[in-house]
Amino acid sequence: MYIKDESRNPTWSHKDRLNRVTVSAALAAGAPGVVVASSGNHGASAAAYAARAGLPAVVIASAESPPAVQTFVRSYGATVLTVAAEQRWPLLRDIVDNLGYHPVSNQTVTHTGHPYGPEGYKTVAYEVFLQLGRVPAAVFAPSGYAELLFGVWKGFVELRRLGLAGSVPAVFACEPAAGGPTTRAVATGAPAAIVETGESAAYSILCEVGGRRGVLAVEGSGGAGVLVDDVALSRAQRELAGAGLWYEISGVAGYAGYRALGREFDGPVVCIATSSGFKDLGVGQTPVTVSDNPTWRDVQAEVERR
Amino acid sequence: MYIKDESRNPTWSHKDRLNRVTVSAALAAGAPGVVVASSGNHGASAAAYAARAGLPAVVIASAESPPAVQTFVRSYGATVLTVAAEQRWPLLRDIVDNLGYHPVSNQTVTHTGHPYGPEGYKTVAYEVFLQLGRVPAAVFAPSGYAELLFGVWKGFVELRRLGLAGSVPAVFACEPAAGGPTTRAVATGAPAAIVETGESAAYSILCEVGGRRGVLAVEGSGGAGVLVDDVALSRAQRELAGAGLWYEISGVAGYAGYRALGREFDGPVVCIATSSGFKDLGVGQTPVTVSDNPTWRDVQAEVERR
Repeated sequence: MYIKDESRNPTWSHKDRLNRVTVSAALAAGAPGVVVASSGNHGASAAAYAARAGLPAVVIASAESPPAVQTFVRSYGATVLTVAAEQRWPLLRDIVDNLGYHPVSNQTVTHTGHPYGPEGYKTVAYEVFLQLGRVPAAVFAPSGYAELLFGVWKGFVELRRLGLAGSVPAVFACEPAAGGPTTRAVATGAPAAIVETGESAAYSILCEVGGRRGVLAVEGSGGAGVLVDDVALSRAQRELAGAGLWYEISGVAGYAGYRALGREFDGPVVCIATSSGFKDLGVGQTPVTVSDNPTWRDVQAEVERR
Repeated sequence: MYIKDESRNPTWSHKDRLNRVTVSAALAAGAPGVVVASSGNHGASAAAYAARAGLPAVVIASAESPPAVQTFVRSYGATVLTVAAEQRWPLLRDIVDNLGYHPVSNQTVTHTGHPYGPEGYKTVAYEVFLQLGRVPAAVFAPSGYAELLFGVWKGFVELRRLGLAGSVPAVFACEPAAGGPTTRAVATGAPAAIVETGESAAYSILCEVGGRRGVLAVEGSGGAGVLVDDVALSRAQRELAGAGLWYEISGVAGYAGYRALGREFDGPVVCIATSSGFKDLGVGQTPVTVSDNPTWRDVQAEVERR
């Protein structure tokens, strides 16, 4: 089992692969700016690539996003508007219609996303293929709209079409149990699904809306949807931190899904970890414990207690 | 001018290059654990590599470190002790003496550091040489103890010794104006210096104590110490964020030093940016501004105001 560490991109999440192409598309279209509805990684990444391209960016966020992430999104000089959740999409559409800004968020009832987005995510497949020297047997990815999963699958499909690879991995959409539109669509045979969502710490991938792309990837590859609850996600997060890899809780859903499925594969398995731990809700909120004059014996006792 | 982006290491700072070798040294020595006095990147990185190596780690932190960074350091399962500043070094020495833990912090009056530390930093030189296809004319690095600077210089010196490169870049120790032990030592002809420190937002590199290594690198390469104040650091941070690169304020000292020096070089210049913006003191502390029902015209006005 391998972890594909997407926290090592320029803004420390997989979203950089998406926004590299969406902001290029905005430039190619001659758009005067970029607009995105996102409270986290996607907004920060879009703002960073827009800044680099010299385009103004408007990020429509919600007030519930983590404090550390809010600083992050603002850092790139974008105009950040924190509005009520139900205002986000109408405002985005107004900005697209009236200002001609290029949208890098979805605007349709089920998720169709940006036309070029999966082209960016394909590079994950290319890198994995080069790094392993072969096609893995399976890929597990944290899935909200399942855009990443689709892009990776598309990358492997095209490697095969080009005659560079002989197979395509089974791909698994790993979703919070409190949601899971791709799992629902696959289970019911629907082209895509909309679900009600409950509570989950995995805010980055807790989506009511799925899309056709993720369903195609799962069904086309012989994969599956895998639901993971917060207990399984927390355990996966601790396990990976114990190996020196700290991800936000949504970011470990691929690995949690691999553990939950418990299936044996005939070849290497790749779990995509999407984003650094700095994006979690609780970051910076834990009070400091100041130890009053500890001795080395106190330290020894503390270490042995673990 | 090129930025060498060290925020893309496994724990998102240059310290991973150091701790990769220090924790290997602890393993090679058969040490039962690792101890480090650090409130930031160094502590988190040491904790991560110790976790990966299966060694317990004790991180002795101070209560003043940024909230987001405290969560970060704790995430890898280390024992984190937050003690008064004056207790840090005696406690570290006790743990080394009584528990046999391997120290990855300095324990001497001027900074001598870990013997293997610069061997890890040498890889920056090797990567820059491969990535540029040549030796740069100059390297600017954020400098506290100047260990990174020395390691990079040593890497280039060894490339020349191996006959792979024909020259060594001039290296510049870029220090907060509120401190600056390497600049002081070079200016006074001393082997190393200890200075009084004032206030600076660049807490990660605000050191009272310098070391011989940094002085050797600056003098041996025809470089210099460069002092940068918080205004110059903030400007550098904003400029780089405007190019899509968000670093903690200490992390941009190399670029700020390059701008402050204003010298022309006959060849490429590399400014090392050490660490992601998530490590700044103010991260997560800015209050959210919730916009009440904004229209696209409000957004347009806001964008044009910038």
